[in-house]
Amino acid sequence: MKLPNNNMQKADGQAVPEPTLRRLPGYLSFFKSLKINNIEFVSSSQIAATFKMDSTLVTKDLAYTGVKGRTKIGYNVDKLIEKIISFLDFNTQENAFLFGVGNLGKALINYEGLKQYGLRIVAGFDINPAVINTQVNEVKVYAVDDFRDLSRKVSARIGIITTPDLRAQETADLMVAWGIKAIWNFTPQSIKVPENIIVENTSIYSDLAVILNKLNR
Amino acid sequence: MKLPNNNMQKADGQAVPEPTLRRLPGYLSFFKSLKINNIEFVSSSQIAATFKMDSTLVTKDLAYTGVKGRTKIGYNVDKLIEKIISFLDFNTQENAFLFGVGNLGKALINYEGLKQYGLRIVAGFDINPAVINTQVNEVKVYAVDDFRDLSRKVSARIGIITTPDLRAQETADLMVAWGIKAIWNFTPQSIKVPENIIVENTSIYSDLAVILNKLNR
Repeated sequence: MKLPNNNMQKADGQAVPEPTLRRLPGYLSFFKSLKINNIEFVSSSQIAATFKMDSTLVTKDLAYTGVKGRTKIGYNVDKLIEKIISFLDFNTQENAFLFGVGNLGKALINYEGLKQYGLRIVAGFDINPAVINTQVNEVKVYAVDDFRDLSRKVSARIGIITTPDLRAQETADLMVAWGIKAIWNFTPQSIKVPENIIVENTSIYSDLAVILNKLNR
Repeated sequence: MKLPNNNMQKADGQAVPEPTLRRLPGYLSFFKSLKINNIEFVSSSQIAATFKMDSTLVTKDLAYTGVKGRTKIGYNVDKLIEKIISFLDFNTQENAFLFGVGNLGKALINYEGLKQYGLRIVAGFDINPAVINTQVNEVKVYAVDDFRDLSRKVSARIGIITTPDLRAQETADLMVAWGIKAIWNFTPQSIKVPENIIVENTSIYSDLAVILNKLNR
């Protein structure tokens, strides 16, 4: 179904820069709002104004997805949406295990938005007996020891860490042992993993630190 | 209580670079884990190894907080924790209003961690009658129209947007009209605000896009 080499290269074989990748979901959200307002075409300068960017950069970003704008008409909004979703693999669903079913963990499981963006959380894990064997939005929460049995039924390449900070490393170790290929770490803790494992840190505390600093300047 | 010019400048008056600010919460979490393991001192090279960074950069980062390491002994862990917390204003609590009490909004209100990092959500706002007048973790949810009354009792400088994407801009407009100084936007939507308003975007979809891209390479 998926073309493994399709989504990180453009026609000339260049890898997509991470800043471009990071901007694409924002563009997508903007184009969806245009569509809802029945706007069919958008120019790179309109996009650039919305995102306070240079329009050359916008054109470059969008070129990676394979969409082409037309002079004086601009980009077709439907086409943009379709191409970005496909480029970002948001149209397929990647399975994920989530470890640490506390407030943030539950919220991510409940967050229907993630499914639209290509991620399906298929199981939760916790060490708290009060949480084990419960369900969150039809996703079952398992004890860590249940993994071996579960892995016969369902597999996942992505592991999400929403444990307390101090459990982040042991959770990562476990995930690697289980065959998880990419770890999405929501704790501010730095985790060590083998080189072939992908790690992405979402640190809301870093964002908060920036806000507080700017506020108190 | 607060010294407004204290936290973004070091002794010689230089502003703190944003990458440094962003790294400090991660260091803090690491130092807290050392403390729990009764480790009293840590060297910049140990810190550098944990974060896969150059130790010169670690030393530079920590210098901004005013903490000083000693040759051959390293940094005092207690001191590091104290200095970073104070430097990041995590020891005072800034009030915030949260707009959009859905899954993510509820999770942020429930997230006790934010309080330890300097943020107190004091009220929620929503347009859904089923949510208005309910409480989430002792935080009351108001209708938008209640703001005028509420503002006589409690004030906040930070506004958090956890609405559906398409409501982000109107929510931001409202926040600015209410006197909010800093907007923390959790939607992928780009928002336009006057220049004096601080905006910080937390885009978990961008992080997800990076993970999916690396996985499918």
